[in-house]
Parts: sequence; structure tokens; C-alpha cells
Amino acid sequence: MILFEEAEHIVLSSAYPFGHENVELNKSLGRILAVDIRSDIDMPPFDKSAMDGYACRKVDILNELEVIETIKAGMVPREIIGKNQCSKIMTGGMIPDGADCVIIVEEVEELQGNNIRYKKNRIAENICYRGEDIKTREIVLKKGTLIKSQHIAILASVGIAQPEVYKKPLVSILSTGNELVEPGMKPDYSQIRNSNGYQLYNQVLNTGAEPICEGIVSDSEDETYERINDGLAKADVVLLTGGVSMGDYDFVPEILQKLKANIHFKEVAIQPGKPIVFAQAGKKFIFALPGNPVSSFTTFELFVKPFLLKLMGHDYKPLLIKMPLGVEFSRKGVSRKKWIPVIIDENGFVMPLEYHGSAHIYALEKAHGLVNINIGKAKIKKGELVDVRQI
Amino acid sequence: MILFEEAEHIVLSSAYPFGHENVELNKSLGRILAVDIRSDIDMPPFDKSAMDGYACRKVDILNELEVIETIKAGMVPREIIGKNQCSKIMTGGMIPDGADCVIIVEEVEELQGNNIRYKKNRIAENICYRGEDIKTREIVLKKGTLIKSQHIAILASVGIAQPEVYKKPLVSILSTGNELVEPGMKPDYSQIRNSNGYQLYNQVLNTGAEPICEGIVSDSEDETYERINDGLAKADVVLLTGGVSMGDYDFVPEILQKLKANIHFKEVAIQPGKPIVFAQAGKKFIFALPGNPVSSFTTFELFVKPFLLKLMGHDYKPLLIKMPLGVEFSRKGVSRKKWIPVIIDENGFVMPLEYHGSAHIYALEKAHGLVNINIGKAKIKKGELVDVRQI
Repeated sequence: MILFEEAEHIVLSSAYPFGHENVELNKSLGRILAVDIRSDIDMPPFDKSAMDGYACRKVDILNELEVIETIKAGMVPREIIGKNQCSKIMTGGMIPDGADCVIIVEEVEELQGNNIRYKKNRIAENICYRGEDIKTREIVLKKGTLIKSQHIAILASVGIAQPEVYKKPLVSILSTGNELVEPGMKPDYSQIRNSNGYQLYNQVLNTGAEPICEGIVSDSEDETYERINDGLAKADVVLLTGGVSMGDYDFVPEILQKLKANIHFKEVAIQPGKPIVFAQAGKKFIFALPGNPVSSFTTFELFVKPFLLKLMGHDYKPLLIKMPLGVEFSRKGVSRKKWIPVIIDENGFVMPLEYHGSAHIYALEKAHGLVNINIGKAKIKKGELVDVRQI
Repeated sequence: MILFEEAEHIVLSSAYPFGHENVELNKSLGRILAVDIRSDIDMPPFDKSAMDGYACRKVDILNELEVIETIKAGMVPREIIGKNQCSKIMTGGMIPDGADCVIIVEEVEELQGNNIRYKKNRIAENICYRGEDIKTREIVLKKGTLIKSQHIAILASVGIAQPEVYKKPLVSILSTGNELVEPGMKPDYSQIRNSNGYQLYNQVLNTGAEPICEGIVSDSEDETYERINDGLAKADVVLLTGGVSMGDYDFVPEILQKLKANIHFKEVAIQPGKPIVFAQAGKKFIFALPGNPVSSFTTFELFVKPFLLKLMGHDYKPLLIKMPLGVEFSRKGVSRKKWIPVIIDENGFVMPLEYHGSAHIYALEKAHGLVNINIGKAKIKKGELVDVRQI
């Protein structure tokens, strides 16, 4: 049995990024940049007006000004601003030569003829200067960035219509157990429905990798061998649930040995999720996760998600939100690092959720995240700061 | 100009949920349940073992026990446990009649013949009782739930293979402005690339609605009229960016009047994003968002995202994370509710990000969320608790 931190290190250091591909910008959400992105332009590309108003000279703002041109966004001004002159300008419009400020339209009085007057006496430039946000050749997004909507705006603005991203690993998902039936079936008295397969499919989807749902495998050594073997041929990663505790019918570790896979670990000192296998066969990987839905969910979050993201070139750092626990939490055994599902309440406290154990499929329904309690620690005091790992 | 809270109320009370459809379980991530989901079974469906071990009678655990059967998950036990008898049982296996506890395999010694002995003297039941997590007919997920991976496990386990969800609204996205070119083009000196269109496309995608990218509309009243009219014919919601400030070429409000749309509001006392139009034409809706990328992003998060989710039957409550600000923040004007991009640091503080204003496309790159500072408030003290609205 190894520690969580060791297991995490083994998993992450086994991952290597895949090849690259180019995708359309509108297909790039959640993908991971395979190259640094540099700007091909200054941003803004020219000195531009931050407001709707009149571009003029600071020295003239107390005088009556003649309007000599109207500058809208997208056009190049023709006129140069001289003494007591101004050009009407729209937000985003290019500042004309000669001008060094924009007086805003709400603070200007229109006079007879083509003249205006500034009603205040306050100099604000209201100009966004060329290159003030981003300069040409500057790196705007780093290799390894997981692309969100706001990154897509940056890619678009520097001319990246087909960003180069890491390829998606294929992940084959197998649910093991004679007791399993598919959701559309009514289980007999001794059966339960396959929920982990579907939960894992969607957890994989959330990471940006490509899941393949392979259904149920019965507790037969031959069938399990064949199905894992098939999975390894077809996919980059095989995820199994069930079949990894100490029961007589849990022969996954032996099968992995038969498949000449190198078993990195078989047990981690965590709760839930102690029996978790991570193995490697050449450039392919196998995770065998425990069969209980909460254990399967949690071990995916702790190990498989960071691993898949690393395979896609992203160094996943879960956002840890440090907040006080709202009630005292205690436990009996202290030999494993425990993860408990929590919600963040509106008063700024972290509250543990009702949790009957790793088969309690309902425990995660409202959870915002997981909080861990270290080996040797039996109690978290009310008000003690904890790190919420969001799920 | 109306307050943020009024605008939010108007937007949300205008939304009505669409029709229903059934989708495959593996296509349901991010969709919204249109009906309450009740369990068709008890969970667990029978008293089952929480551990690998031996099912026996509590009164006998200090005695040598005869193993009379092996019970694996998915099978119905044949034998009844009598005095000084036990059955070997796997995690998830059905507790045989007669037994009232499971002693765990690690704490058991195998003896000569078919007998075992418990090495400890501690009674733990290690049984998950029938219905202890969920009872038949109990509501397990409410109508309006936004489906996450953990909810998919619940749906699967209660037999919902094709959940009934709300239909997705179609959202047509138009970027207005003569100065715009598409990302694949090199902008001339006075042009900029269309970044909002792509950012919005992906923000819409993230809500679960169906975006349609309609590209750039020039600053011509006729073209803008035609394109909005087309958008309203094709989609349920039209999103425009640009064209809504006070400039002479910003004729969107007039066009909306021509289209007989009812303009709910044209200005909200927020920063960024003061010029934001929300209008309704029959059962169709139009948002005209400001043209700066940060304003466009922020107003989408504040108004369009909750609106689209409401159209899909989900009452979106952004998770507000209450944490202390790590530095003092101050501002000059106090007439609008201001939203600033922030990160959550590892020490449990909220830090404002460098932010040059609403055209500063780079400001959101690392942002975890937005913090607001209310009208009339000029300063947030270091250490003061703020609510981070995650983005």
C-alpha cells in the first residue's frame, strides 16, 4: 500500500503527451494548446478612443471647438486636429493626429453651427494606446493552456483560426461484475444497474478525452482477459471498475500480469478507493477503479482526470479553495487519507454532506467539492481552514 | 439606466422553459431534467456486504466458524447461517439469512479443514441495509437539475436510460462593426479581428444551448435590420455584440423598434457593460452586448447565461465563494456596480487581476471569477470578505 502523494507522482510521471492536430476555433473549447501562441499585432493596433466623444487637444478643452470630421470605428481619420478643433469619434475609433485626449459625449454641449463646448474642466485622456494590452510577438497564451471561452477570444484576436492542440486519447470503459445489468433493464433481486460505466464515460468527456463505452464484463477470467486485451488494442487507456478488491473473483491484477502489463500500484492509502490498480503495457495504460460509485468517482477525480489531462499536455492543478469548515468533523480510523464530499454554503463555510460510505451514490448529488483529511488526523475543528478541491 | 438587480429580474422573469425531449444517457451531460426522477428500486436493493469477509452471527464471532458457502456479488445465497457457521462473502454480496454481521477477511485466520477464526473481538456489522441510501418511489433528482457526471450515475442506477430533458434554444450570434475582420484575415491598420463572436459561441456552448455563428455585420442600418430579422426567424435568441453605445452608427435600438421588439432595457448601471440592450419580439429574444471583449464576456455571464439556463428550465444560482480580498481595492467613480476579474490564490485570498479596462482582452486569461463592488462603494479593504462569482 502506498501513499496518495506517491501514487499521484507515479501516475503523473507516467504520462507523456500525444501528437498534435489543428482544429477549428469553434471546436477548440476544452482542448489543450500544443504550442505557445504569440500575437501578430499590437493590441490595440492603434491609439483608439475608449469612449464616444470628441478627440481634441488638452490645451483647448476650455475653448469652443470646431468639429472638423466624424471618425467611426474601422476608418482612418483624414483630418489633423489643430488649435480649437476636434473630431467627433466613436468608441474604438482611431485617434486623429494632433489630438491627445477625448472629451466624452455626455459632457459636451452642442452649439450653433458645427461647434461644441466641454461642460466640465477635467482632463481624462480616454485613449487606449497602441500596444498597451499586448505587443507584437508577445506570448499571449502558453503551450499547455486548457482553452476556455476567454482564451478563444484571445486566439481569434491574434489570428489563430485553427489552433494547434494535443490529440485526444481514446479511453475504453469496462464495468466488471456478474451482478450488473444495463440501466434500461430491471435488475433481479441480486443485481444492480451499471452506473459507473456511464458516470465514467461522462467524467472522461469532461476532461476532453474521447470515451468509448464498452459495457459490462462478467466475472469470468477469460472474458475479462479478452475484453481488456481488446480495449488495449483499440484505445490508449483502459478504465475498469469493480474487480479490484480482495474477493476471490477479483482477478484483474493476475490478468494484467498475463498481459505483461507493469503494475505500478495496487493499493493506495486513501478512503474511499484503497483498491485501485494503475498499470502500463507499453504505451498503453490501465486503471482499475473500485466498483462503488463514490469510490469510482473520487479515484477518477484524484488520479485519472489529472492523468488524462497530462496525456493531453496540460499540467492540471485543481483549484483549491481555502475556507473554514462549518462544523466539527471526526472519524475513527486514521490510517488512510480520507476524502469527504462537501458543499460551500452562502455564509462562507464548508459543510460535509451526509455520506453513508462509498456505495452511497446519492452523496455527491449536491457536492461542490472534496476535502481531504490526512493520515493520522482524526478531527477537523469547526472553523479550521480546509482546502476544497472542486469537482 | 436601471440597476443590475432590476435588469437581472427582468431578464429572468422573461424566460419560459421550452419543450421536452428524451436523450441517450451518454448525451445528457450538461442538459437539464424536465421531470422529477424517482427511484424504481431500493438502494441497496438487498442487505449487502460492505466488505470482503465472512457473514455470520454476532453471538458466534469468538468461536471457530465453519464456512458453508461462498457468496459473490450477483448471486442469491442458498444456505442459511446457523450457530457457528459462516459464508465467505464478497463486497456487494447479498447477506445470507441468519447472518447479522460480516467479519472482514484481513482479520480472519484460516484454520484446518473448512474452518476460520476471527482474530479480533470487535463487532462491526459491515452491512449496507436495503433502502438505506434510497427508497423505492423516493425522488432522487429534481426537475431543473443540471446534469453532471455524478447525476448520470444516479439516473443509471434508477433505470433512466433516456432522461427527459428540456430542449436547447438556438442562439444566433452576430458581431457588428465595419472595423471587424475574421480571425483568419490580417487586419488593416484600422481594423480588428472578430473575437467576440467566437468567445460568445463558446460561452453559449458552455451553457448547453445551441449556438449558430453568423459572422460579421457591417455598420449599415439596412444590413443590420436584415440580419437581425433573419436571426429571429431562425433562432430563439439573437446575440449581437457592438453597436449599442451612443455613437452615431449604433442604430441597434432603432432597428429593434422597427422590428416591433419590446425593449426591456437599454442601459444598466454596471461596469463594464453599461450599454446592454435586452428586447423581446413575441417569443424570441434579443441581447445586444457591448463590443469590448471583457464587457461582452461579463454581460454574457451576468445576464445571458442565467437567461439561457432559465429557458432550459434551470434556475441558475452562481456559486458564490466568500473569501477575503488580499489587497486593498479602490476606484474613482461609484455610480455603477463594478465587476472585476480576480484569481483565488493558494493562501486563501482573492486577488484582483491587472485590468486596463473593458477592451483588455487579456484580463480574463487567468481569472477564476468576478467580484462586484456595489454602487456607492469606493473601496474594499484588505481582508474584507468578498463573493467570488466563478466564471
